[in-house]
Amino acid sequence: MKRAVCIVSGGMDSAVAAAMAKKEGYGIVAVHFNYGQRTEAKELECFRLLAEDLEALERYEIDLPFFTQIGASALTDESIEIPTGGMEEGVPVTYVPFRNGIFLSIAAAIAEKEGAEAIYIGVVEEDSSGYPDCRESYIKAMERAIELGTREETKIQIRMPLVHLHKSQIVSTALKLGVELGHTWSCYKEEEEACGVCDSCRLRLAGFRQAGVEDPIPYQS
Amino acid sequence: MKRAVCIVSGGMDSAVAAAMAKKEGYGIVAVHFNYGQRTEAKELECFRLLAEDLEALERYEIDLPFFTQIGASALTDESIEIPTGGMEEGVPVTYVPFRNGIFLSIAAAIAEKEGAEAIYIGVVEEDSSGYPDCRESYIKAMERAIELGTREETKIQIRMPLVHLHKSQIVSTALKLGVELGHTWSCYKEEEEACGVCDSCRLRLAGFRQAGVEDPIPYQS
Repeated sequence: MKRAVCIVSGGMDSAVAAAMAKKEGYGIVAVHFNYGQRTEAKELECFRLLAEDLEALERYEIDLPFFTQIGASALTDESIEIPTGGMEEGVPVTYVPFRNGIFLSIAAAIAEKEGAEAIYIGVVEEDSSGYPDCRESYIKAMERAIELGTREETKIQIRMPLVHLHKSQIVSTALKLGVELGHTWSCYKEEEEACGVCDSCRLRLAGFRQAGVEDPIPYQS
Repeated sequence: MKRAVCIVSGGMDSAVAAAMAKKEGYGIVAVHFNYGQRTEAKELECFRLLAEDLEALERYEIDLPFFTQIGASALTDESIEIPTGGMEEGVPVTYVPFRNGIFLSIAAAIAEKEGAEAIYIGVVEEDSSGYPDCRESYIKAMERAIELGTREETKIQIRMPLVHLHKSQIVSTALKLGVELGHTWSCYKEEEEACGVCDSCRLRLAGFRQAGVEDPIPYQS
């Protein structure tokens, strides 16, 4: 059975990307990163539920404690506040330096070990937080680097099926594929009830609103 | 003062690359990775001595325990033996899947945080162990990916000053720059006295022999 490494953060986008891999007929190698982000425990809980839903063949829960050593992001440094006033222009303080580069490199190592032919990542370019490591041009460059930096016989495609979708299309795709959206978490701040006002909550809620669907997760009222 | 992130493994090559960065006038941000390799403790000890020698402005000791979860290399999986019979054709079992990709990605995150304009890595292409992630073409591709996947204002060059040198030239350069070679370790297997027969020891010893210099570290007789 052909295999795909799916980076599953516990969020909605990567859950949908992984469901698309499954629909393409891949056996799923589910990979999750604990990187000291504020909502680490909740995201891990969601990952475990989603890995069940996906009937993952293999699971990797990878601890990356060094992210808090580097810091330089509101997600990994408690002294930097998460903005809640609405999306702004430019790269937000929640940007974690080269996070997807680190995640994709580790995913590549796992893919090479597991003999997987694809890595699925749920990056979204336009309707997103404005992170430079979510752009298609970057992901293609990374694919090329992985091609050159691994064994001759290792051939790994990076698939990013959501990169040009809007959030409402992601919600519709989730429903079409039967993704259990109650098993996903997007809030940057809270683990019990989503805050509803961080950038990630705002993007998610707008997506549900535009899709005309109710979000099944709890929000602070 | 302009800054360079130097990946310093504790081995000879990266020590020389870092000394070249220093000679170029960079303030050194010294980065070391503990990845569960067999000689982890010895390499860390050498890193600390070298960081002193380099008068590093900043030091990062980064723990990457997940490498042993992935395994698939004689360096990170104790059940795979280190070959000692001499160099062979092809990618050896000591190859760690996409190790330099992971190291460079983390170095890029640190460089972006520290405002460093260069990353120095001691890869050697021809006179080396045959790892795919030590080739110039790969490193250039990775530089491009880092360019695209970080903030607009982040400009990071990857410098690999040893990539086309032979080991004997690396030894001569070390001596010219005053690198304390007794503070470096290359053996894949042993931490007290180098084995002398793993690929890494063989490459190092041949380099010293061709340079007509004695290696200051202890070897098993």
